[in-house]
Amino acid sequence: MQGLWLDGGRLTYRDDLPVPRPAAGEALIRVRLAGICGTDLQLLAGYYPFEGIPGHEFVGEVVTAADPGWVGQRVVGEINLFCGRCATCAAGRHRHCERRSVLGIRDHHGAFAEYLTLPVLNLHRIPDSVPDEKAVFTEPLAAALQIQSQVAIGPDQRVLLIGAGRLGQLIAPTLALTGCQLEVSARYPTQRRLLRAQGIPTLEADEIPATKYDIAIEATGSADGFREACRAVRPAGTIVLKSTYRDSVAVDLAKLVVDEIRVVGSRCGDFGPALDLLERGLIDPAGLIAERLPLNDGPEAFRNAALPGALKVLLAPLSALDSPHSDSPEFAAPGRGTANSRR
Amino acid sequence: MQGLWLDGGRLTYRDDLPVPRPAAGEALIRVRLAGICGTDLQLLAGYYPFEGIPGHEFVGEVVTAADPGWVGQRVVGEINLFCGRCATCAAGRHRHCERRSVLGIRDHHGAFAEYLTLPVLNLHRIPDSVPDEKAVFTEPLAAALQIQSQVAIGPDQRVLLIGAGRLGQLIAPTLALTGCQLEVSARYPTQRRLLRAQGIPTLEADEIPATKYDIAIEATGSADGFREACRAVRPAGTIVLKSTYRDSVAVDLAKLVVDEIRVVGSRCGDFGPALDLLERGLIDPAGLIAERLPLNDGPEAFRNAALPGALKVLLAPLSALDSPHSDSPEFAAPGRGTANSRR
Repeated sequence: MQGLWLDGGRLTYRDDLPVPRPAAGEALIRVRLAGICGTDLQLLAGYYPFEGIPGHEFVGEVVTAADPGWVGQRVVGEINLFCGRCATCAAGRHRHCERRSVLGIRDHHGAFAEYLTLPVLNLHRIPDSVPDEKAVFTEPLAAALQIQSQVAIGPDQRVLLIGAGRLGQLIAPTLALTGCQLEVSARYPTQRRLLRAQGIPTLEADEIPATKYDIAIEATGSADGFREACRAVRPAGTIVLKSTYRDSVAVDLAKLVVDEIRVVGSRCGDFGPALDLLERGLIDPAGLIAERLPLNDGPEAFRNAALPGALKVLLAPLSALDSPHSDSPEFAAPGRGTANSRR
Repeated sequence: MQGLWLDGGRLTYRDDLPVPRPAAGEALIRVRLAGICGTDLQLLAGYYPFEGIPGHEFVGEVVTAADPGWVGQRVVGEINLFCGRCATCAAGRHRHCERRSVLGIRDHHGAFAEYLTLPVLNLHRIPDSVPDEKAVFTEPLAAALQIQSQVAIGPDQRVLLIGAGRLGQLIAPTLALTGCQLEVSARYPTQRRLLRAQGIPTLEADEIPATKYDIAIEATGSADGFREACRAVRPAGTIVLKSTYRDSVAVDLAKLVVDEIRVVGSRCGDFGPALDLLERGLIDPAGLIAERLPLNDGPEAFRNAALPGALKVLLAPLSALDSPHSDSPEFAAPGRGTANSRR
């Protein structure tokens, strides 16, 4: 099949990749559309040693599954593959499973290909009213909503979002839904324009007032963004870290103690509420699409996505345009669901 | 009056200091007993630029106050002097007042002297059943209890306390009261003996299991302690920072994000619950006293308090042993309470 291959910091397009073989409990999914995320760019930059097919934001169609009810369904899929048997899973924290693999990030081939596999328990059907171009944002939208599952945010709170890139543009409207007093520090004019069109106030980094905000959300992934958050948050306030950092950052821990700051790391979220917001039209990410390229232009798509201020670059396999159901002879029959795939 | 004077990292005993003049709303307090805290040692080491009389853990007796009902009362005092008029005070966060001074730490002379002044609103009467030697622990005990006001701790949680020095020895028994599954990483045999005598399990730093604890409390003030906390806490767990750090610490922020760790800075707490625990005998800190020296031995007392594993060194003015009420002619008449001293 076609796909992108990441190896030693080098990304190549290949058309000779084997179609992945579903493990027990997994479905085979034909990829219709996939999005390039900051994490993908960091993988390419060597942030995490991953060799294989990257990509974890996708819309696909189930080709094979043990339960025939899934076949033909248009789906998105949660990206953490959990064991269901470790203490962490037993405690209900499946996304932190000690033995997890992660779609396109750790020990499991991802979505920049014609096909991927995922446990059926990770899948969510997409409502008919949500087109692929919106559904492909489910994963980052769920990550944006995770902030609200960790930190109570309401109308009486002054919230600063630092960073209005791909993820920030999804975080901002989810915060706006809470009615909080939101301001967004956005570096690029395009970012500010998108936010202002939704009635969300913006400012530039050098305009951020000190010790004003009850909650400062850092979504730049840079040490500068973290320092701005530390400066902007009020005593006894909360900093949410929403993007990953390649290097260690020098932190004034004494300030965290003296000012009793709370720092909350935030990663993935539940897909259900994200799909619900898309279906109800409360979040419309379509304006965040910068371009849509075929999979064989993947290396160029990655370069474009890495440009300063770039928004969402989408990749679609050529076959997704051609044939609704591929029937590669390399498909393996899926196994039955086991305790291994309990959610 | 007698007192210790800190200036440019040098601590001297002096007997020619002026008795402090109470501002409006303040009481003049004769110091009966004062304790040396890690923060005092850090001030001496240059952690914060303070020139004046250090010391913030004390028991005293009110000499003058606008309300005569306070005169003669044995008291402890909250250490943050707040303005009562800034946005932070208006929001009820007096201990974080934007214009605060802090007893013996910032812009207000402290307790290593014969007399100090504090707003009456900062004072708490000491129950008769609590002797000076226990009441002098009210401030650090309140700081220990602040952890529980910030993080819910109960019997189902595995809690690791890293550091069993002066502060850790107070944190440990307050945690034990919650019924949590507590273990304490203690470096010195004396520290371990004190904890085991209370039935609190201890371990050494190299015995700490990785990713086991729901909550890891860092009370060493060292970068090593922070790193141990990061290693020990489970995904989606909480690290509480309970001691200040002189230097910036290199932090793997990506780990905080990927593992969704929460880091909570924790400083001072309410005196009421601390005095209550002392009165009810649920916490008995008397065993933590290493020695009690007269004020003129202050520099030696600081050296002893800085020895590895040292517990609480107390200082008492000679006059506290001699005369129940001094009558220095330098006393200034206290002013009336104002909005400045509203708590």
